Amino acid sequence: MIIDCHGHYTTAPAVLKDYRAEQAAGLGDPGYKPRPFDITIGDDEIRESVEGAQLKLQRERGTDLTVFSPRAAGMAHQDGNEISNGLWTRICNDMIYRACTLYPENFVGVCQLPQAPGVAPANCIPELERCVNELGFIGLNLNPDPTGGYWTDPPLFDRWWYPLYDKMVELDVPAMIHVSSSCNPHFHFTGAHYINGDTAAFMQVLTSDIFKDFPSLKFIIPHGGGAAPYHWGRYRGLAQDMGRPPLDELLLNNVYFDTCVYHQAGIDLLTKVIPTKNILFASEMVGAVRGIDPETGFPFDDTKRYIDNAPGLDPYAKKAIFEDNVRAVFPRLKI
Amino acid sequence: MIIDCHGHYTTAPAVLKDYRAEQAAGLGDPGYKPRPFDITIGDDEIRESVEGAQLKLQRERGTDLTVFSPRAAGMAHQDGNEISNGLWTRICNDMIYRACTLYPENFVGVCQLPQAPGVAPANCIPELERCVNELGFIGLNLNPDPTGGYWTDPPLFDRWWYPLYDKMVELDVPAMIHVSSSCNPHFHFTGAHYINGDTAAFMQVLTSDIFKDFPSLKFIIPHGGGAAPYHWGRYRGLAQDMGRPPLDELLLNNVYFDTCVYHQAGIDLLTKVIPTKNILFASEMVGAVRGIDPETGFPFDDTKRYIDNAPGLDPYAKKAIFEDNVRAVFPRLKI
Repeated sequence: MIIDCHGHYTTAPAVLKDYRAEQAAGLGDPGYKPRPFDITIGDDEIRESVEGAQLKLQRERGTDLTVFSPRAAGMAHQDGNEISNGLWTRICNDMIYRACTLYPENFVGVCQLPQAPGVAPANCIPELERCVNELGFIGLNLNPDPTGGYWTDPPLFDRWWYPLYDKMVELDVPAMIHVSSSCNPHFHFTGAHYINGDTAAFMQVLTSDIFKDFPSLKFIIPHGGGAAPYHWGRYRGLAQDMGRPPLDELLLNNVYFDTCVYHQAGIDLLTKVIPTKNILFASEMVGAVRGIDPETGFPFDDTKRYIDNAPGLDPYAKKAIFEDNVRAVFPRLKI
Repeated sequence: MIIDCHGHYTTAPAVLKDYRAEQAAGLGDPGYKPRPFDITIGDDEIRESVEGAQLKLQRERGTDLTVFSPRAAGMAHQDGNEISNGLWTRICNDMIYRACTLYPENFVGVCQLPQAPGVAPANCIPELERCVNELGFIGLNLNPDPTGGYWTDPPLFDRWWYPLYDKMVELDVPAMIHVSSSCNPHFHFTGAHYINGDTAAFMQVLTSDIFKDFPSLKFIIPHGGGAAPYHWGRYRGLAQDMGRPPLDELLLNNVYFDTCVYHQAGIDLLTKVIPTKNILFASEMVGAVRGIDPETGFPFDDTKRYIDNAPGLDPYAKKAIFEDNVRAVFPRLKI
């Protein structure tokens, strides 16, 4: 079985985006109260939105199950406040639940959180509990920068986050550390903000004791771990210079990298440098890059091909990356 | 000849740091006027500061010449205003000039700029002209984020920067795009802010027409180009999805990556993915990582070894990386 641990509902019906745009526009008015989302989306619309996209690509590429979450850029926590983001998050998570219910063999849910700039992550706990306990979700996407590129809320090692970590441990769910869209003109969202968010998160766990405080907490750093594997020597050296433990001891019992790296040489480096047990198959489809690589004739984001062709991986290692590691990191996955 | 295009005067006498700390502390007082730097630093102190460090490492590692600039984290443009940063920059550049004058076969100068948050880069032109025309410097370090991790000044493609680019073209000097220290707790300086600054800069040139407007402008993106080479497929794909030209046409006549990547696998990826003509030898010594890699028994930042051992490089390619490319990017280098 091949499990893609990183897929977003990027093809959700357009009325969702329209509703969110209305919310964002309303925020300028201090008296604005977001209206409830009262538009009916039929099951057929949901089927149509995934049949020609995620499901088609699963079939074409030979993958089985996608760990499915709301569109990452769509979370846009900076475009809302606690109330509007609460409504929006519930809507997005419910859409995931419906897709998973329609296609229980193809999708399993991961939620977004109702984070908002300046609002304590502890306030996200009721929605996380609802998604895990009532909707059967197996993990969450945690946005380390709800300000959308200005990074003015506390970093991941701050105790600000600890109540949420406590709940994650209790529920036994991992978090993918995934930023959302960027409202900072310095950072293109999929080209800079995503990758920089990954790298920042990695360094935040390297320099802190999060995993001493939460030994069973699990973070997935997407997009192949940002820059971390490419600069693995730098990170090993920085940890050593700081008197920190070696990286395998410091964080490799808790941190996992996905395989959203869109060329063979990148996957070859990832699979060479990072222990196999810390690598989870993912393609981020339908996602950041949608074209055909003219150098190979295949889609850039068909990452299964790169794993299939990675020279250093034996069949056991491939099975671990494609399935076993994903199951180990998502203990609630029972399919 | 082996030319290291990225070395900082990290070992400068401590009185410099003390002076800068006094400046930074004074900024809280609206009436503060920084005193001129009136401490005499003798030639012997300068000799002592580099003999046991940069020069010793040059000898040990078999490199010849270092393109030498002030300590990158020491620029700390966020800790000053136009006046204090102007004074500070002049002091730092003069120190580089003195080191280069004492060791003309070992060092050639690159300047920092008197940038400050909210201050137009055009105001840096007199100091750039002084460094190039009077001190014989061959390039500059350009900080894309003088706010130290909050990224609130305009990005590199904004016309805010264009007068400086005009002057760079006129003087025929390249810029290394190098952030400084971080005052944002999200970003460890050498582990996150540096690498993220590189990745952000790369994406800023990918999405803009800077090099259409300045066809002979040259940027060096340090630390192996941040995350760019590891995610080269993503960047090729994003450019294609956006209808931009292929990367070699769009930016590889103007953008160069250094070799400050501290393990063999990283250098192997860099030299495999990026055309040889776009790679410049560098070690950043004495810099971010100072220890011995227990996996190899050699210093992490002895990057010459990785180039020597890179499987895909023939002797011509190695000579290009070690010398010819550096000369091509720094036309004012005449040694």
